[in-house]
Amino acid sequence: MSVSEPSGHKDLVVRLKHDADLVQSVTELARSNGIDAGSFTAIGALKRARLGYYDQKNRKYREIKIDSPHEMASCVGNISLKDGEPFAHIHVVLADEGGNTKAGHLFEGVVFAAELHLRQLEGPKLERKYDEVTGLSLWEVK
Amino acid sequence: MSVSEPSGHKDLVVRLKHDADLVQSVTELARSNGIDAGSFTAIGALKRARLGYYDQKNRKYREIKIDSPHEMASCVGNISLKDGEPFAHIHVVLADEGGNTKAGHLFEGVVFAAELHLRQLEGPKLERKYDEVTGLSLWEVK
Amino acid sequence: MSVSEPSGHKDLVVRLKHDADLVQSVTELARSNGIDAGSFTAIGALKRARLGYYDQKNRKYREIKIDSPHEMASCVGNISLKDGEPFAHIHVVLADEGGNTKAGHLFEGVVFAAELHLRQLEGPKLERKYDEVTGLSLWEVK
Repeated sequence: MSVSEPSGHKDLVVRLKHDADLVQSVTELARSNGIDAGSFTAIGALKRARLGYYDQKNRKYREIKIDSPHEMASCVGNISLKDGEPFAHIHVVLADEGGNTKAGHLFEGVVFAAELHLRQLEGPKLERKYDEVTGLSLWEVK
Repeated sequence: MSVSEPSGHKDLVVRLKHDADLVQSVTELARSNGIDAGSFTAIGALKRARLGYYDQKNRKYREIKIDSPHEMASCVGNISLKDGEPFAHIHVVLADEGGNTKAGHLFEGVVFAAELHLRQLEGPKLERKYDEVTGLSLWEVK
Repeated sequence: MSVSEPSGHKDLVVRLKHDADLVQSVTELARSNGIDAGSFTAIGALKRARLGYYDQKNRKYREIKIDSPHEMASCVGNISLKDGEPFAHIHVVLADEGGNTKAGHLFEGVVFAAELHLRQLEGPKLERKYDEVTGLSLWEVK
Protein backbone atom coordinates (compact mmCIF):
# COMPACT_ATOMS: atom_id res chain seq x y z
CA MET A 1 0.00 0.00 0.00
CA SER A 2 1.45 3.34 -1.08
CA VAL A 3 0.21 6.44 0.68
CA SER A 4 0.61 10.04 -0.43
CA GLU A 5 -0.32 13.03 1.70
CA PRO A 6 -1.06 16.17 -0.30
CA SER A 7 0.31 19.38 1.18
CA GLY A 8 -2.58 21.53 0.01
CA HIS A 9 -5.96 21.35 -1.58
CA LYS A 10 -8.97 23.24 -2.78
CA ASP A 11 -12.50 22.45 -3.89
CA LEU A 12 -14.04 23.09 -7.29
CA VAL A 13 -17.70 22.85 -8.23
CA VAL A 14 -18.40 22.35 -11.91
CA ARG A 15 -21.43 22.21 -14.19
CA LEU A 16 -20.44 20.25 -17.26
CA LYS A 17 -21.58 21.33 -20.70
CA HIS A 18 -24.55 19.73 -22.41
CA ASP A 19 -23.33 17.43 -25.22
CA ALA A 20 -19.71 17.49 -24.03
CA ASP A 21 -17.83 14.28 -23.30
CA LEU A 22 -17.45 13.78 -19.57
CA VAL A 23 -13.94 12.29 -19.80
CA GLN A 24 -12.62 15.05 -22.06
CA SER A 25 -14.33 17.72 -19.94
CA VAL A 26 -12.61 16.58 -16.76
CA THR A 27 -9.29 16.32 -18.58
CA GLU A 28 -9.74 19.84 -19.97
CA LEU A 29 -10.76 21.12 -16.53
CA ALA A 30 -7.55 19.69 -15.10
CA ARG A 31 -5.39 21.14 -17.88
CA SER A 32 -6.86 24.63 -17.81
CA ASN A 33 -6.74 24.87 -14.01
CA GLY A 34 -3.31 23.30 -13.55
CA ILE A 35 -4.73 20.35 -11.62
CA ASP A 36 -2.17 17.52 -11.44
CA ALA A 37 -4.00 15.48 -8.82
CA GLY A 38 -7.54 15.33 -7.57
CA SER A 39 -10.54 13.26 -6.60
CA PHE A 40 -14.13 13.85 -7.61
CA THR A 41 -17.72 12.68 -7.55
CA ALA A 42 -20.49 13.65 -9.95
CA ILE A 43 -24.16 13.00 -10.63
CA GLY A 44 -26.38 13.79 -13.59
CA ALA A 45 -27.50 12.09 -16.75
CA LEU A 46 -25.81 10.92 -19.95
CA LYS A 47 -27.21 10.73 -23.49
CA ARG A 48 -25.02 7.74 -24.30
CA ALA A 49 -21.77 6.19 -23.14
CA ARG A 50 -19.02 3.69 -23.75
CA LEU A 51 -18.07 1.68 -20.69
CA GLY A 52 -15.11 -0.62 -20.17
CA TYR A 53 -14.51 -3.87 -18.35
CA TYR A 54 -10.89 -4.83 -17.83
CA ASP A 55 -10.30 -8.49 -18.62
CA GLN A 56 -7.82 -9.26 -15.84
CA LYS A 57 -6.67 -12.49 -17.46
CA ASN A 58 -6.21 -11.31 -21.05
CA ARG A 59 -5.19 -7.82 -19.93
CA LYS A 60 -7.34 -5.78 -22.21
CA TYR A 61 -10.49 -3.70 -21.93
CA ARG A 62 -13.75 -4.93 -23.38
CA GLU A 63 -16.14 -2.24 -24.46
CA ILE A 64 -19.80 -1.97 -23.48
CA LYS A 65 -21.91 0.39 -25.58
CA ILE A 66 -24.75 2.27 -23.92
CA ASP A 67 -26.75 3.81 -26.75
CA SER A 68 -29.68 5.28 -24.82
CA PRO A 69 -30.14 8.02 -22.19
CA HIS A 70 -29.31 6.96 -18.64
CA GLU A 71 -29.19 8.55 -15.23
CA MET A 72 -25.62 8.78 -13.97
CA ALA A 73 -26.45 7.27 -10.58
CA SER A 74 -22.83 7.41 -9.49
CA CYS A 75 -19.60 8.81 -10.86
CA VAL A 76 -16.35 8.50 -8.90
CA GLY A 77 -13.03 9.48 -10.40
CA ASN A 78 -9.57 10.85 -9.95
CA ILE A 79 -6.99 12.95 -11.74
CA SER A 80 -3.28 12.16 -11.86
CA LEU A 81 -0.41 12.47 -14.32
CA LYS A 82 0.21 10.06 -17.18
CA ASP A 83 3.12 10.77 -19.50
CA GLY A 84 3.33 14.20 -17.86
CA GLU A 85 -0.26 15.15 -18.71
CA PRO A 86 -3.40 15.24 -16.52
CA PHE A 87 -5.29 11.97 -16.90
CA ALA A 88 -8.85 11.31 -15.70
CA HIS A 89 -9.75 7.85 -14.40
CA ILE A 90 -13.53 7.58 -14.06
CA HIS A 91 -16.00 4.85 -13.07
CA VAL A 92 -19.78 5.22 -13.38
CA VAL A 93 -23.02 3.47 -12.56
CA LEU A 94 -25.77 4.21 -15.08
CA ALA A 95 -29.51 3.55 -14.70
CA ASP A 96 -32.25 3.23 -17.31
CA GLU A 97 -35.95 4.08 -17.13
CA GLY A 98 -36.65 0.99 -15.04
CA GLY A 99 -33.80 1.75 -12.61
CA ASN A 100 -31.76 -1.10 -14.10
CA THR A 101 -28.04 -0.52 -14.12
CA LYS A 102 -24.93 -0.84 -16.26
CA ALA A 103 -21.58 0.09 -14.76
CA GLY A 104 -17.85 0.14 -15.32
CA HIS A 105 -14.89 2.19 -16.42
CA LEU A 106 -15.95 5.27 -18.40
CA PHE A 107 -14.35 5.66 -21.82
CA GLU A 108 -16.84 8.20 -23.11
CA GLY A 109 -20.03 9.74 -21.76
CA VAL A 110 -22.05 12.35 -23.62
CA VAL A 111 -23.40 14.75 -20.99
CA PHE A 112 -27.09 15.57 -20.80
CA ALA A 113 -26.51 17.33 -17.48
CA ALA A 114 -23.76 16.77 -14.91
CA GLU A 115 -22.72 18.32 -11.60
CA LEU A 116 -19.23 17.63 -10.36
CA HIS A 117 -17.40 18.28 -7.09
CA LEU A 118 -13.63 18.07 -7.38
CA ARG A 119 -11.13 18.06 -4.58
CA GLN A 120 -7.87 19.34 -6.02
CA LEU A 121 -4.81 17.94 -4.27
CA GLU A 122 -1.44 19.59 -4.25
CA GLY A 123 1.89 18.26 -3.10
CA PRO A 124 3.69 15.03 -3.98
CA LYS A 125 3.27 14.11 -7.65
CA LEU A 126 0.79 11.37 -8.42
CA GLU A 127 2.05 9.67 -11.59
CA ARG A 128 0.90 6.65 -13.52
CA LYS A 129 3.47 4.11 -14.68
CA TYR A 130 3.01 0.81 -16.45
CA ASP A 131 2.50 -1.97 -13.92
CA GLU A 132 3.76 -5.43 -14.96
CA VAL A 133 1.44 -7.32 -12.62
CA THR A 134 -1.84 -5.93 -13.93
CA GLY A 135 -0.96 -4.55 -17.36
CA LEU A 136 -2.43 -1.22 -16.26
CA SER A 137 -0.96 2.23 -15.67
CA LEU A 138 -1.07 2.61 -11.89
CA TRP A 139 0.02 5.25 -9.43
CA GLU A 140 3.57 5.47 -8.34
CA VAL A 141 2.92 7.28 -5.10
CA LYS A 142 6.08 9.17 -4.13
CA MET B 1 -18.19 24.21 -18.44
CA SER B 2 -18.78 26.55 -15.49
CA VAL B 3 -16.39 26.34 -12.59
CA SER B 4 -16.84 27.76 -9.12
CA GLU B 5 -14.14 27.85 -6.46
CA PRO B 6 -15.46 28.01 -2.91
CA SER B 7 -13.57 30.34 -0.58
CA GLY B 8 -14.02 28.17 2.48
CA HIS B 9 -15.30 24.82 3.61
CA LYS B 10 -15.84 22.49 6.47
CA ASP B 11 -16.75 18.83 6.94
CA LEU B 12 -19.81 17.41 8.68
CA VAL B 13 -20.41 13.81 9.67
CA VAL B 14 -24.03 12.85 10.16
CA ARG B 15 -25.99 9.83 11.33
CA LEU B 16 -29.45 10.09 9.84
CA LYS B 17 -32.52 9.17 11.87
CA HIS B 18 -34.18 5.80 11.55
CA ASP B 19 -37.48 6.17 9.63
CA ALA B 20 -36.63 9.69 8.42
CA ASP B 21 -36.70 10.56 4.73
CA LEU B 22 -33.18 10.94 3.41
CA VAL B 23 -34.00 13.82 1.05
CA GLN B 24 -35.84 15.80 3.72
CA SER B 25 -33.12 15.06 6.28
CA VAL B 26 -30.37 16.48 4.08
CA THR B 27 -32.52 19.51 3.26
CA GLU B 28 -33.20 20.07 6.98
CA LEU B 29 -29.50 19.61 7.76
CA ALA B 30 -28.69 22.31 5.22
CA ARG B 31 -31.34 24.69 6.51
CA SER B 32 -30.51 24.31 10.19
CA ASN B 33 -26.75 24.65 9.61
CA GLY B 34 -26.91 27.47 7.08
CA ILE B 35 -25.42 25.32 4.33
CA ASP B 36 -26.02 26.93 0.91
CA ALA B 37 -23.63 24.68 -1.00
CA GLY B 38 -22.09 21.28 -0.39
CA SER B 39 -21.25 17.85 -1.67
CA PHE B 40 -21.78 14.56 0.10
CA THR B 41 -21.58 10.79 0.03
CA ALA B 42 -23.48 8.35 2.19
CA ILE B 43 -23.91 4.62 2.77
CA GLY B 44 -26.45 2.63 4.75
CA ALA B 45 -29.76 0.92 4.11
CA LEU B 46 -33.25 2.08 3.18
CA LYS B 47 -36.61 0.56 4.11
CA ARG B 48 -38.15 1.71 0.85
CA ALA B 49 -37.62 4.41 -1.75
CA ARG B 50 -38.95 6.27 -4.75
CA LEU B 51 -36.42 6.70 -7.53
CA GLY B 52 -36.60 8.84 -10.63
CA TYR B 53 -35.47 8.53 -14.22
CA TYR B 54 -35.50 11.71 -16.26
CA ASP B 55 -36.98 11.14 -19.69
CA GLN B 56 -34.63 13.38 -21.68
CA LYS B 57 -36.91 13.47 -24.72
CA ASN B 58 -40.23 14.11 -23.02
CA ARG B 59 -38.61 16.16 -20.26
CA LYS B 60 -40.28 14.63 -17.26
CA TYR B 61 -39.33 12.26 -14.48
CA ARG B 62 -40.64 8.73 -14.42
CA GLU B 63 -40.99 7.21 -10.97
CA ILE B 64 -39.63 3.84 -9.90
CA LYS B 65 -41.05 2.44 -6.67
CA ILE B 66 -38.82 0.37 -4.42
CA ASP B 67 -41.10 -1.19 -1.85
CA SER B 68 -38.68 -3.47 -0.02
CA PRO B 69 -35.56 -3.00 2.14
CA HIS B 70 -32.35 -2.39 0.18
CA GLU B 71 -28.73 -1.67 0.96
CA MET B 72 -27.80 1.85 -0.09
CA ALA B 73 -24.67 0.74 -1.95
CA SER B 74 -23.92 4.28 -3.07
CA CYS B 75 -25.33 7.72 -2.40
CA VAL B 76 -23.80 10.80 -4.01
CA GLY B 77 -25.40 14.21 -3.73
CA ASN B 78 -25.04 17.94 -3.53
CA ILE B 79 -26.67 20.96 -1.93
CA SER B 80 -27.28 24.23 -3.72
CA LEU B 81 -29.91 26.99 -3.73
CA LYS B 82 -33.20 26.74 -5.59
CA ASP B 83 -35.62 29.65 -5.28
CA GLY B 84 -33.42 30.93 -2.47
CA GLU B 85 -33.74 27.76 -0.37
CA PRO B 86 -31.26 24.88 0.16
CA PHE B 87 -32.05 22.08 -2.28
CA ALA B 88 -30.66 18.54 -2.13
CA HIS B 89 -29.92 16.69 -5.38
CA ILE B 90 -29.27 13.02 -4.64
CA HIS B 91 -28.57 9.89 -6.69
CA VAL B 92 -28.45 6.39 -5.21
CA VAL B 93 -27.64 2.80 -6.09
CA LEU B 94 -29.72 0.30 -4.09
CA ALA B 95 -29.09 -3.45 -3.73
CA ASP B 96 -31.44 -6.25 -2.72
CA GLU B 97 -30.76 -9.54 -0.91
CA GLY B 98 -29.20 -11.02 -4.04
CA GLY B 99 -26.97 -8.01 -4.61
CA ASN B 100 -29.11 -6.94 -7.57
CA THR B 101 -29.41 -3.23 -8.08
CA LYS B 102 -31.85 -0.44 -8.84
CA ALA B 103 -30.56 3.09 -9.22
CA GLY B 104 -31.46 6.64 -10.13
CA HIS B 105 -32.45 10.04 -8.83
CA LEU B 106 -33.72 9.87 -5.24
CA PHE B 107 -37.16 11.38 -4.65
CA GLU B 108 -37.71 9.70 -1.29
CA GLY B 109 -35.80 7.17 0.79
CA VAL B 110 -36.94 5.94 4.18
CA VAL B 111 -33.81 5.47 6.28
CA PHE B 112 -33.11 2.20 8.07
CA ALA B 113 -29.60 3.42 8.88
CA ALA B 114 -27.45 5.97 7.06
CA GLU B 115 -24.04 7.55 7.55
CA LEU B 116 -23.28 10.73 5.66
CA HIS B 117 -20.14 12.79 5.08
CA LEU B 118 -20.83 16.32 3.88
CA ARG B 119 -18.34 18.80 2.59
CA GLN B 120 -19.83 22.23 3.16
CA LEU B 121 -18.67 24.80 0.61
CA GLU B 122 -18.67 28.52 1.20
CA GLY B 123 -18.10 31.36 -1.23
CA PRO B 124 -19.72 32.07 -4.59
CA LYS B 125 -23.43 31.25 -4.58
CA LEU B 126 -24.45 28.03 -6.30
CA GLU B 127 -27.98 28.63 -7.59
CA ARG B 128 -30.30 26.54 -9.72
CA LYS B 129 -32.15 28.20 -12.59
CA TYR B 130 -34.42 26.70 -15.19
CA ASP B 131 -32.41 25.47 -18.17
CA GLU B 132 -34.17 25.60 -21.54
CA VAL B 133 -32.01 22.93 -23.14
CA THR B 134 -32.73 20.16 -20.64
CA GLY B 135 -35.92 21.28 -18.91
CA LEU B 136 -34.10 20.90 -15.59
CA SER B 137 -33.03 23.36 -12.90
CA LEU B 138 -29.26 23.51 -13.27
CA TRP B 139 -26.46 25.44 -11.60
CA GLU B 140 -25.69 28.94 -12.63
CA VAL B 141 -22.14 28.96 -11.41
CA LYS B 142 -21.16 32.59 -10.73
CA MET C 1 -30.09 13.35 13.16
CA SER C 2 -26.74 13.61 14.94
CA VAL C 3 -24.16 15.94 13.49
CA SER C 4 -20.45 16.07 14.22
CA GLU C 5 -18.11 18.78 13.01
CA PRO C 6 -14.48 17.72 12.80
CA SER C 7 -11.96 20.30 13.96
CA GLY C 8 -9.31 19.33 11.46
CA HIS C 9 -8.70 17.17 8.46
CA LYS C 10 -6.26 16.05 5.84
CA ASP C 11 -6.36 14.12 2.57
CA LEU C 12 -4.64 10.84 1.77
CA VAL C 13 -4.26 9.23 -1.63
CA VAL C 14 -3.61 5.50 -1.60
CA ARG C 15 -2.80 2.79 -4.10
CA LEU C 16 -3.90 -0.50 -2.57
CA LYS C 17 -1.80 -3.61 -2.96
CA HIS C 18 -2.54 -6.22 -5.59
CA ASP C 19 -4.04 -9.32 -3.92
CA ALA C 20 -4.66 -7.52 -0.61
CA ASP C 21 -8.12 -7.47 0.97
CA LEU C 22 -9.67 -4.04 0.57
CA VAL C 23 -11.38 -4.06 3.98
CA GLN C 24 -8.24 -5.13 5.83
CA SER C 25 -6.13 -2.65 3.85
CA VAL C 26 -8.28 0.31 4.84
CA THR C 27 -8.33 -0.87 8.46
CA GLU C 28 -4.53 -1.21 8.43
CA LEU C 29 -4.19 2.21 6.77
CA ALA C 30 -6.28 3.71 9.59
CA ARG C 31 -4.31 1.93 12.32
CA SER C 32 -0.86 2.75 10.99
CA ASN C 33 -1.73 6.41 10.35
CA GLY C 34 -3.68 7.02 13.55
CA ILE C 35 -6.91 7.68 11.67
CA ASP C 36 -9.90 7.46 14.02
CA ALA C 37 -12.41 8.99 11.62
CA GLY C 38 -12.58 9.47 7.90
CA SER C 39 -14.55 9.20 4.70
CA PHE C 40 -13.36 7.78 1.40
CA THR C 41 -14.14 6.84 -2.16
CA ALA C 42 -12.27 4.37 -4.36
CA ILE C 43 -12.35 2.89 -7.84
CA GLY C 44 -10.54 -0.05 -9.37
CA ALA C 45 -11.14 -3.73 -9.91
CA LEU C 46 -11.51 -6.77 -7.65
CA LYS C 47 -10.55 -10.39 -8.31
CA ARG C 48 -13.38 -11.65 -6.13
CA ALA C 49 -15.49 -10.44 -3.24
CA ARG C 50 -17.96 -11.26 -0.51
CA LEU C 51 -20.86 -8.82 -0.27
CA GLY C 52 -23.48 -8.48 2.43
CA TYR C 53 -27.17 -7.63 2.52
CA TYR C 54 -28.57 -6.79 5.92
CA ASP C 55 -31.88 -8.50 6.50
CA GLN C 56 -33.65 -5.66 8.33
CA LYS C 57 -36.39 -7.94 9.67
CA ASN C 58 -34.29 -10.85 10.89
CA ARG C 59 -31.38 -8.58 11.81
CA LYS C 60 -28.58 -10.51 10.22
CA TYR C 61 -26.37 -10.21 7.19
CA ARG C 62 -26.82 -12.52 4.23
CA GLU C 63 -23.70 -13.17 2.22
CA ILE C 64 -23.37 -12.81 -1.55
CA LYS C 65 -20.33 -14.48 -3.11
CA ILE C 66 -18.73 -12.88 -6.13
CA ASP C 67 -16.27 -15.44 -7.47
CA SER C 68 -15.12 -13.72 -10.67
CA PRO C 69 -13.22 -10.52 -11.56
CA HIS C 70 -15.34 -7.35 -11.49
CA GLU C 71 -14.79 -3.66 -12.01
CA MET C 72 -15.28 -1.75 -8.77
CA ALA C 73 -17.59 0.81 -10.32
CA SER C 74 -18.12 2.53 -6.99
CA CYS C 75 -16.71 2.25 -3.49
CA VAL C 76 -17.88 4.57 -0.72
CA GLY C 77 -16.83 4.07 2.87
CA ASN C 78 -15.99 5.53 6.23
CA ILE C 79 -13.72 4.95 9.19
CA SER C 80 -14.81 5.27 12.80
CA LEU C 81 -14.07 3.58 16.12
CA LYS C 82 -15.63 0.30 17.22
CA ASP C 83 -14.54 -1.13 20.57
CA GLY C 84 -11.79 1.47 20.57
CA GLU C 85 -10.27 0.31 17.26
CA PRO C 86 -10.52 1.80 13.76
CA PHE C 87 -13.34 0.14 11.85
CA ALA C 88 -13.97 0.41 8.10
CA HIS C 89 -17.55 0.44 6.82
CA ILE C 90 -17.55 -0.02 3.05
CA HIS C 91 -20.19 -0.35 0.32
CA VAL C 92 -19.40 -1.22 -3.29
CA VAL C 93 -20.98 -1.56 -6.70
CA LEU C 94 -19.29 -4.21 -8.86
CA ALA C 95 -19.68 -4.71 -12.61
CA ASP C 96 -18.98 -7.76 -14.79
CA GLU C 97 -17.85 -8.00 -18.42
CA GLY C 98 -21.34 -7.09 -19.63
CA GLY C 99 -21.57 -4.08 -17.32
CA ASN C 100 -24.06 -5.93 -15.13
CA THR C 101 -23.87 -5.11 -11.43
CA LYS C 102 -23.86 -6.65 -7.99
CA ALA C 103 -23.71 -4.37 -4.98
CA GLY C 104 -23.88 -4.20 -1.21
CA HIS C 105 -21.89 -4.09 2.00
CA LEU C 106 -18.29 -5.22 1.47
CA PHE C 107 -17.10 -8.03 3.74
CA GLU C 108 -14.06 -8.93 1.66
CA GLY C 109 -12.68 -7.79 -1.66
CA VAL C 110 -9.46 -9.10 -3.19
CA VAL C 111 -7.79 -6.17 -4.94
CA PHE C 112 -6.70 -6.41 -8.56
CA ALA C 113 -6.04 -2.66 -8.59
CA ALA C 114 -7.56 0.08 -6.44
CA GLU C 115 -7.12 3.82 -6.02
CA LEU C 116 -8.46 5.42 -2.89
CA HIS C 117 -8.95 9.00 -1.74
CA LEU C 118 -9.44 9.35 2.01
CA ARG C 119 -10.49 12.42 3.88
CA GLN C 120 -9.17 12.05 7.41
CA LEU C 121 -11.31 13.83 9.99
CA GLU C 122 -10.06 14.97 13.36
CA GLY C 123 -11.99 16.25 16.33
CA PRO C 124 -14.97 14.78 18.16
CA LYS C 125 -14.76 11.00 18.44
CA LEU C 126 -16.92 8.99 16.08
CA GLU C 127 -17.75 5.76 17.90
CA ARG C 128 -19.97 2.85 17.02
CA LYS C 129 -22.32 1.46 19.68
CA TYR C 130 -24.91 -1.25 19.46
CA ASP C 131 -28.24 0.19 18.32
CA GLU C 132 -31.35 -1.60 19.63
CA VAL C 133 -33.61 -0.39 16.83
CA THR C 134 -31.59 -1.80 13.94
CA GLY C 135 -29.38 -4.45 15.56
CA LEU C 136 -26.38 -2.69 14.01
CA SER C 137 -23.39 -0.83 15.47
CA LEU C 138 -24.10 2.78 14.61
CA TRP C 139 -22.39 6.10 15.28
CA GLU C 140 -22.85 7.83 18.56
CA VAL C 141 -21.96 11.28 17.30
CA LYS C 142 -20.75 13.32 20.26
